[in-house]
Amino acid sequence: MSDPIHIPADPGQYGYTFGGREAIAAVKPGAPITLRTLDCFGGKVRTVDDLPSQVCEFPYLNPVTGPLHVEGAEPGDTLAVHVVSLTPASSFGISSTFPHFGALTSTGYTRTLQEPLEERVWLYDIDLDAQTVRYRARRSDFTVDLPLAPMLGTVGVAPAANEVRQTIVPDVHGGNLDTPLLGPGATLYLGVNVPGALLALGDGHARQGDGEVCGVAVEVAMDVTVVVDVIKGVPTGTPRLETDDQLVSLGAARPLEDAFRISQDDLVRHVASLTGLDLLDAYQLVSQTTSARAGNVVDPQYVMSAAIDKRYLPGTVAYGGVHERLRNG
Amino acid sequence: MSDPIHIPADPGQYGYTFGGREAIAAVKPGAPITLRTLDCFGGKVRTVDDLPSQVCEFPYLNPVTGPLHVEGAEPGDTLAVHVVSLTPASSFGISSTFPHFGALTSTGYTRTLQEPLEERVWLYDIDLDAQTVRYRARRSDFTVDLPLAPMLGTVGVAPAANEVRQTIVPDVHGGNLDTPLLGPGATLYLGVNVPGALLALGDGHARQGDGEVCGVAVEVAMDVTVVVDVIKGVPTGTPRLETDDQLVSLGAARPLEDAFRISQDDLVRHVASLTGLDLLDAYQLVSQTTSARAGNVVDPQYVMSAAIDKRYLPGTVAYGGVHERLRNG
Amino acid sequence: MSDPIHIPADPGQYGYTFGGREAIAAVKPGAPITLRTLDCFGGKVRTVDDLPSQVCEFPYLNPVTGPLHVEGAEPGDTLAVHVVSLTPASSFGISSTFPHFGALTSTGYTRTLQEPLEERVWLYDIDLDAQTVRYRARRSDFTVDLPLAPMLGTVGVAPAANEVRQTIVPDVHGGNLDTPLLGPGATLYLGVNVPGALLALGDGHARQGDGEVCGVAVEVAMDVTVVVDVIKGVPTGTPRLETDDQLVSLGAARPLEDAFRISQDDLVRHVASLTGLDLLDAYQLVSQTTSARAGNVVDPQYVMSAAIDKRYLPGTVAYGGVHERLRNG
Amino acid sequence: MSDPIHIPADPGQYGYTFGGREAIAAVKPGAPITLRTLDCFGGKVRTVDDLPSQVCEFPYLNPVTGPLHVEGAEPGDTLAVHVVSLTPASSFGISSTFPHFGALTSTGYTRTLQEPLEERVWLYDIDLDAQTVRYRARRSDFTVDLPLAPMLGTVGVAPAANEVRQTIVPDVHGGNLDTPLLGPGATLYLGVNVPGALLALGDGHARQGDGEVCGVAVEVAMDVTVVVDVIKGVPTGTPRLETDDQLVSLGAARPLEDAFRISQDDLVRHVASLTGLDLLDAYQLVSQTTSARAGNVVDPQYVMSAAIDKRYLPGTVAYGGVHERLRNG
Repeated sequence: MSDPIHIPADPGQYGYTFGGREAIAAVKPGAPITLRTLDCFGGKVRTVDDLPSQVCEFPYLNPVTGPLHVEGAEPGDTLAVHVVSLTPASSFGISSTFPHFGALTSTGYTRTLQEPLEERVWLYDIDLDAQTVRYRARRSDFTVDLPLAPMLGTVGVAPAANEVRQTIVPDVHGGNLDTPLLGPGATLYLGVNVPGALLALGDGHARQGDGEVCGVAVEVAMDVTVVVDVIKGVPTGTPRLETDDQLVSLGAARPLEDAFRISQDDLVRHVASLTGLDLLDAYQLVSQTTSARAGNVVDPQYVMSAAIDKRYLPGTVAYGGVHERLRNG
Repeated sequence: MSDPIHIPADPGQYGYTFGGREAIAAVKPGAPITLRTLDCFGGKVRTVDDLPSQVCEFPYLNPVTGPLHVEGAEPGDTLAVHVVSLTPASSFGISSTFPHFGALTSTGYTRTLQEPLEERVWLYDIDLDAQTVRYRARRSDFTVDLPLAPMLGTVGVAPAANEVRQTIVPDVHGGNLDTPLLGPGATLYLGVNVPGALLALGDGHARQGDGEVCGVAVEVAMDVTVVVDVIKGVPTGTPRLETDDQLVSLGAARPLEDAFRISQDDLVRHVASLTGLDLLDAYQLVSQTTSARAGNVVDPQYVMSAAIDKRYLPGTVAYGGVHERLRNG
Repeated sequence: MSDPIHIPADPGQYGYTFGGREAIAAVKPGAPITLRTLDCFGGKVRTVDDLPSQVCEFPYLNPVTGPLHVEGAEPGDTLAVHVVSLTPASSFGISSTFPHFGALTSTGYTRTLQEPLEERVWLYDIDLDAQTVRYRARRSDFTVDLPLAPMLGTVGVAPAANEVRQTIVPDVHGGNLDTPLLGPGATLYLGVNVPGALLALGDGHARQGDGEVCGVAVEVAMDVTVVVDVIKGVPTGTPRLETDDQLVSLGAARPLEDAFRISQDDLVRHVASLTGLDLLDAYQLVSQTTSARAGNVVDPQYVMSAAIDKRYLPGTVAYGGVHERLRNG
Repeated sequence: MSDPIHIPADPGQYGYTFGGREAIAAVKPGAPITLRTLDCFGGKVRTVDDLPSQVCEFPYLNPVTGPLHVEGAEPGDTLAVHVVSLTPASSFGISSTFPHFGALTSTGYTRTLQEPLEERVWLYDIDLDAQTVRYRARRSDFTVDLPLAPMLGTVGVAPAANEVRQTIVPDVHGGNLDTPLLGPGATLYLGVNVPGALLALGDGHARQGDGEVCGVAVEVAMDVTVVVDVIKGVPTGTPRLETDDQLVSLGAARPLEDAFRISQDDLVRHVASLTGLDLLDAYQLVSQTTSARAGNVVDPQYVMSAAIDKRYLPGTVAYGGVHERLRNG
C-alpha cells in the first residue's frame, strides 16, 4: 500500500464543474486518500431560516473536492474509486425544498404556469453513536429516527471532448449520480477521458431515499476516505459500481426510460462479457434477476441503477478483482 | 371466516379484458378463494420450439381468471386483495423474447426501422422442494439456480366510465402491474368502480426482475389462494399495496417519470393522511425513506413502486388494519 | 352517389366511448351524411361563469355522435372519412382552463404538489360572414379577431380486441386526435376493427393552435357533412390523413417522442410503399421534406403529425385515389 | 452602419464547443459580418462512399465558426443575430444515416440490443439558379427536385457558469437548434452569459424537414452574412426568434414534451409581457394561435418551436424593434 494522502480542507480545493480546472493534488493508486467534502449548500444553510435561494448564489451549488490527478490514468483506462469510509462532519444534516426543483413540482424543464411550492428547510440531528438521523416535522410535533446511511452524491472525472459540466449533472463521466448504493464498501468504475482522470467528489448525504424526490437529501459535510486504482486498457462507458454482493450499472439520461435502458443495456453487456453468454441469453438472465431502482429523478439528467447479485454469476470476477483487492486493503 | 370458495379451472373462466365481461362467480369478503391461473401464453408454449408469435393468437395473451363479483363492493369503496399463497402448477416456467416487445428493443410505440431481435424461448425447471427455478442458457452450457419467488403479474377490477381494457394494460384499475412486490403475504388495494368490483387475476410469475426488461418473466400457471375484503366508503386512486413491513403506492403511466411521479405523489399524500403531517413535511419524510423500483418498463403503461417502511410511521394503521386482519386469517 | 343520410340531433345519438355501443344508424359508402355534433362540454358551458368542473359531470366530456355502421366495412379494411363541410352551429365558442388539465400545468399523470391553476372560461364571438372568431381577454380589454378554421377534434371507430375507450383518448382507432389538419377537404383513414367499423365523431373546434396547449380549443357545436368510403382488403395501422396537397401520418402515444416516432415511421413506410423506394431511401426523403406538428399535448395520449407534400411523390396515388373521388363528390 | 467585417476561412476559426475557446475576432453591432461555415462533416464526406464513421473523427463533428467577441455585450443583455443571407458554397449537399443516431433507430440514449441501421450517404445536387436541391435515391432511379431552403443549424454563445458544451447540443445558450425557421430574414435572440457573448455559428443546411428525423439534413458549407445587435439590460432565457411575420420561442430539452413545454411557456410569458395580458389570458390566446413544430428530435436535447403570428398581437413590438431595424439594414 502507498502512503496515505490527506487533502487539507482549503477553500481552493472546491469547484463547481467537472473539467475546466487544474488538479489540486496528485494521488497514487492504492494510497488511502482522506479529505473533507462540503455539503451541497457549501455550508451556507445553518438554520431552518436560511432559505437556500437567499443564502446561496445560484447556480454555484454542489461543490466538489478536487480535481485529483491520478497517476497513470490515461484515456481508455478505467478508474476504480473505492469508498473506504464516510463520516458526517457535522452534528446536523440539512434538507429543503427549492422553488421549481424536485420531482413533485414543475421545474425549469417541466414548466408550468403554477406558483412554486413553499421553500422550506429541515434540520436533522445526526447521532453517530446511535447511527441515526432524526427527522423533525416543521408544522407538527412528529419526529422519527432514521438509520444513518452515509453516501456520496457526486463523484466524477473530467468529461471527454473538452466538455465542462456543472457538478449538478450526472452523465457518463459520473457527476451527480445520487444513488444510495454509493456508500462505504462500494467501488465506482468510471471511464478515463483525460490524463490523470481528474477525479473530484462531494455532496455527502447522511441518507437519501431512491429518487431524491424533493430534490435534496440529508445533506452534510463528510470526512471521506477513498482509495483508487487504475485498470489499464479497459474502457468503461456508463458508470458501474460494485459491492461485495452486487454488480451495478448506472444510466444517466432523460427521459427516465432512457436512464433505465442505458443501465439495463450496460448490465446485459457486462454480464455477457463476464459469463460468455450471448446477448440474448444475458438479456434473459438479467430480466429475471435485476433490481432496478431510481437514483435521482430531479437533476438535469436522471439516474437509474440496474443491479445483479454476484451469486448468479458463479465463477466470474469483474475488472480483474479490483474491488476485492481494494476492499481488503 | 366465511366458507372457502373454489373456482374450477373451466375454460369459461378466462378472459382478456378488464371490464366488458359478466362475473363468473360471486365471492364473500373474508372467504378464502382458490383458483388456478393460466400462464401469459395460455399454456400454448411448451417447448423452446414453440415460438409465441406462431403458437399464440395476438393480442389474446395474458388471460385472467374471473371476473369475480365481490359482495358488498360499490363504487367509492376500496377492494383489498390479500394473497395467501401462490404455488406454481407446473414443473417448468417459460420466458421468451417477442419481436418488438421489451425494454431493449424498438416496439410498436418506440418505433425504429431496425430489424427485430430474434424470438427465443427459455424453459426454467421449477423445484418446489428446493424453492428454485433453474436458468439454462440457450447458446451455451451456463446454468444457474435462482430463488423461486412467486408473484401475480396481473390483478385488477373493472375500469370506470364503462371502459374495457386489455389485460396487458396497467392503470388505476390495476391490471398488468408486474411488480415483484405482489407475492404471498401482500395485500393489494384497488378502487372499486362498479358494483361487485369484478376482480380478475392471472399472469403468475415464478420470479421476475424489476422492470421485466425482456418483456416476459418466468411465466407459469399458478395455484392461487386469495382472500378479499371491502373497505366501505374509502376510495383509492392509484393502486396501493401493503406488506408486513411496507406501505407501497404504484403508479402506472408513460413516460416512466410520470409513473414515478404518480407513485411518489400518492405515497406522500398517504403518509400525510396517516400521520397528520402537512404535505411538504410528508414530501420531506418520503424523500429520505422511499424505495423506488421499476415494476414493468415494457407494457402499454409502465409501473413504478414507491415504498416506505412502516416503522418510520409509528402509531399509524392503513385502511383500518385490514392487512393485519387478512394476514392473520 | 347514394342518397344523403341525415342523423337527427336526438339525445340518444351521443356517447362517451369508442366501442361498447350499438350503431344508431347504418350508412352507405358514397352517401353524404349530415349530423350535428355537440361541443366537448355537451353544451353545458354557456357563460364565463359556468365553470366546467361545476356544470359538467366528469369524466363524461367530449360526446361523439354515433356510432354509425358503415355498410361493407370489415376488419382488415380501411375506412375513409372525407370531411365535406363544417359549420359552427352556435354564435359563440367556448374555451377554458381545467384544474390539472393542459400542457402548462401539473396533471393527473404529471403530478406535483402545487396548487392548480385558476379555472377560467372564455367566450369567443363567431362571425360566419367575416369568418372570424373574436378572442376577448378576461382581465383586460385586449381583443383580437382570429380566422375561423373549423375542424373536428374527435373521429374514430370501435377499437380492436373488444376494448372500449373513452372519447378523450386518441389511439390507433382514431379518437381525440385534435389536429388542425382535420378540417373541410381532408380525408381521414382509419383501420376497421369490427364489422361496420362503428364510426363516431364530435368535438368540433372553431379553431385550435397546435398542441391545444391549455387543453381546450374554441369549442363549438358543429353542423357536419362527411362522406365515407371503404377500401377493401387494405389495412391501416396508425391513422392517416390526406388533403389536396399533403399525405399525413398521425401518431398517438406518450411520451411525445413516441408519437413523433410513430408518425414518422408510418410516413416513411407509406412513402416507401407508394414510390418503391427502399426503407432507408424513403427515410432520407422524408427527413428532408416532412412537416412535424403537435396535435394535442394534453390528452391521455399525445398526437404528432408527419406531413409530406404530394408534389414530392410524383406519379403516386394513395389508397387508390379515394381522396380525389370523395373530394370531387 | 458600421464597416463590414470579413472572417477569412482559416482553419483556426473552427471549433467543436461553445465556451472554452478564445475569440477569433471582435465584431461591432450593426456591422455586416461575412464568413464561411463548414458542413457538419468538416468537409470530409465528398462521395457516397465516404462513410462518416470512417472518414470523420468522432465526436468532432459540427464545427462552428468563431467565437466572435461582440462589442458591448455583457451578461444580462440579449444578443440579436440577424441572418442577412445564406448561400451554399458547394454544388452538392450531403446527407447520411449514422449508426445509432437519428429518430428512427436506437441510439446511445435509447439503447436496444438490435443491430444498427445501414450507414448510407446521399449526395444532393444544388442548383442556385433553379433554387433547388435534387434528391436521388441510392437503391432505385427515383429522383425529385426539392426547393432550396437554406438555414443555419447551429448558432450559439458561451454558456453560463463556465460550462463548455459540444456544438451538437442545443440548450439555453443556443447551439444545435436545427430549426428550419432560422433562415435568411430571421433574427435569433440569445441571452448573453459572458463579456462579448462569444458568438459562433455553423452547420448550414440546404434544406431540412422538421425533426431532422434521420439525424442529418442536406449539409453544406455556407457563405453567411449576419449582422448582430445588443439589447442592453434585457435578458433572454430560452432562445427566441423573430421573422417578419412571427414571434417564436424555442425549447431545448429531453423528453420532447419538456421541449414543447419550455417553448410554449416562454411564448405565453413573452405574449403576456408584450400585450399586458395576465398569464392565463395569454395562455388562452397562445392556445388558439400557436404553431408547434419539431426542430430536431435526434440531438442530445430535442428542440420544439412555438410560433405566433404578429398580426394577432396588434400594436406590440418585440425587443424594441431590433428585428425591423436589422432587417432594413
